[in-house]
Amino acid sequence: MTLLPGPIDPPTRLLMGPGPISAYPSVLTAMSAQLVGQYDPFMTGAMAETQELYRRIWATRNDATLLIDGTSRAGIEAAMISLVRPGDRVLVPVFGRFGHLLAEIAERAMAEVHTIEVPWGQVFTPAAIEEAIVRVRPHLLGLVQGDTSTTMLQPLDEIGAICDRHGVLFYSDATASLGGNPFEADAWGLDAATAGLQKCLGGPSGSAPITLSERAVEIIRSRKKIEAGIREPGDEDAPDFVRSNYFDLGMILDYWGPRRLNHHTEATSMLYGARECARVLLGEGRDAVIERHVLHGEAMLAGVRGLGLVVFGDVAHKMSNVVAVEIPEGVAGDAARQAMLEDFGIEIGTSFGPLHGRVWRIGTMGYNARKDAVLTTLAALEQVLRRFGAKVPAGGGVEAALDVYAGAR
Amino acid sequence: MTLLPGPIDPPTRLLMGPGPISAYPSVLTAMSAQLVGQYDPFMTGAMAETQELYRRIWATRNDATLLIDGTSRAGIEAAMISLVRPGDRVLVPVFGRFGHLLAEIAERAMAEVHTIEVPWGQVFTPAAIEEAIVRVRPHLLGLVQGDTSTTMLQPLDEIGAICDRHGVLFYSDATASLGGNPFEADAWGLDAATAGLQKCLGGPSGSAPITLSERAVEIIRSRKKIEAGIREPGDEDAPDFVRSNYFDLGMILDYWGPRRLNHHTEATSMLYGARECARVLLGEGRDAVIERHVLHGEAMLAGVRGLGLVVFGDVAHKMSNVVAVEIPEGVAGDAARQAMLEDFGIEIGTSFGPLHGRVWRIGTMGYNARKDAVLTTLAALEQVLRRFGAKVPAGGGVEAALDVYAGAR
Repeated sequence: MTLLPGPIDPPTRLLMGPGPISAYPSVLTAMSAQLVGQYDPFMTGAMAETQELYRRIWATRNDATLLIDGTSRAGIEAAMISLVRPGDRVLVPVFGRFGHLLAEIAERAMAEVHTIEVPWGQVFTPAAIEEAIVRVRPHLLGLVQGDTSTTMLQPLDEIGAICDRHGVLFYSDATASLGGNPFEADAWGLDAATAGLQKCLGGPSGSAPITLSERAVEIIRSRKKIEAGIREPGDEDAPDFVRSNYFDLGMILDYWGPRRLNHHTEATSMLYGARECARVLLGEGRDAVIERHVLHGEAMLAGVRGLGLVVFGDVAHKMSNVVAVEIPEGVAGDAARQAMLEDFGIEIGTSFGPLHGRVWRIGTMGYNARKDAVLTTLAALEQVLRRFGAKVPAGGGVEAALDVYAGAR
Repeated sequence: MTLLPGPIDPPTRLLMGPGPISAYPSVLTAMSAQLVGQYDPFMTGAMAETQELYRRIWATRNDATLLIDGTSRAGIEAAMISLVRPGDRVLVPVFGRFGHLLAEIAERAMAEVHTIEVPWGQVFTPAAIEEAIVRVRPHLLGLVQGDTSTTMLQPLDEIGAICDRHGVLFYSDATASLGGNPFEADAWGLDAATAGLQKCLGGPSGSAPITLSERAVEIIRSRKKIEAGIREPGDEDAPDFVRSNYFDLGMILDYWGPRRLNHHTEATSMLYGARECARVLLGEGRDAVIERHVLHGEAMLAGVRGLGLVVFGDVAHKMSNVVAVEIPEGVAGDAARQAMLEDFGIEIGTSFGPLHGRVWRIGTMGYNARKDAVLTTLAALEQVLRRFGAKVPAGGGVEAALDVYAGAR
């Protein structure tokens, strides 16, 4: 008999990259709870509780608030393919890699995609977005809130009113930002928003929270199709039905809704995990969690500057939960990251596209938005930078971070 | 502050329906392991181990053996949308609800879909499938192996040779059958096969094992598209690129393969769970697990007959791991199922479409293909049937099952 690998036994890691990050312990505990049946009253009850918890996280009264069974980009694709018909115009302002992803998913959904771009490290003014909307006249605006590729946080608070003025659906991908930065789905006029668990929410990837306005639900309902095996009299296909079964939000809403029409089998353990992520966040308090991300993000920002590192991008528009630093001249970026991982068990992130090899990305998210995590990372980074030939002020990172903590307390 | 629900605390359930079923305890333990980074050597190592474990489960040498991050129908859709171009002809022999699902997913992928049907409770002869192939000349044959809606197991062993003779791609959905019934991907000439964890593999839904032949991979590679944010010189879009980003198997293969090109963030906890499902199965032995499903399936079959229940469908072609029984005249089917759940903590299944209200489905799968699970279910079912007005021989179910166990040992 061929040898089998042993039980899973991950090394201890402090995940301080752009995500995934170490999960809250109670989330992992929740995920080890035993399964129940798909229509067990306990299961449908847990689904309803999870919906209500995420309504509070999104700051919405949207009935259509639920989870997509897949990673964050599953949520993006479900929103795009259900809201956008082939040939519809979609406008995506691109300020990093995940804007390109939104555009690409819209293109795959056979939309007519228009993009505007700013250099990586910047965000858009509302005026620039409105100008493009007037020019393109899109059906939907797809806008990333926080793009981890550049660490930038696009302000969304004025965009909903612009979309409303021009009759445009407003969708935002808040994967990297939700929980660590303000998000107000209703107050900001969002028609759809999606996220993932593996950033500030402190869980594993594999479940994508989504919320949809009534206007969005109307569009989805108008594109209905129900599979032959479970169709009932009166169920008719719309001619422009959604070109995906798995991501057809109409069917997913019927499964989560009172009709409980069979679609997929909800990923029970991921549901347990997503529910616990929300419970942890709301137990601490939504504003308190954002403030915690701001505090530890500021400490990390001061710390990397205290180590003499140059911060990338427009810091005034940085997400609270991640900072990008330029790799010092002469330092072998990937080897230094590897030393952080192998010698200290700490992961920091590399970058994509134009920033690959130029910057590292350091996160302070969810469970790891903590003083000990920040200080340990800075202490280790100081050692590694020095060993890789950078000139580093002894104690400069930790001292600067401690000053932030002293000032804030 | 608004009240929060407590930590997740599921009631104890013995899940004896058509799936999901109770997970192996070690799978739940694996899922509570802490996360590591997406490109941590431990993570990529665990991915490679998982691929190798599933090659053994599928009985294949296919390099392209991996997981799709979603429930079983995510695996079906990934296979369909990546292998079938708009306008391609797809043939689906339908012998239950999940045949309709395959047809529907192919239709959403804009294929020209042809179906043949047999009455629910029967399977196809190879000759009937070949006749349809000759008539339709499809690009791909999509065939469910085990359809839980009818409990039937479609023999696949002669189909690959037929497909090969006529130059047809052969795809099978083995969600309900894999692990509890023979499956030989290479020997049977499969080009693609997909499954889920929540049946005989004994895990939660949310991860879909998939395996792809070299011929399938060639088609997928010819339809390449890489998103702008991570594209490199030399990466060009194919004109017939896959109309989904999330389910583009070309990108998913690049992420699982040596290029490790960023796509989604692999659902780490689901990967841990899927790996453990395979480890449990292979530790017991692939053939031993199938034999266990056969034994406990036969005991359950004898048991329900011993209770005087009539078994639905062609028993010679039943899956080992589930049996459908007609609800006796005068018994309120849903109320009786509810009594099983509420009074005994045991779940048995209802049915879909033409069988809804007519049959119950009782599973013996994965962790619950066990003597105590079978006997406890039969003992409780006897009590409930009697209470709901059926004439039931006292001890008839348990005795008949024990006879099977006595004969088999």
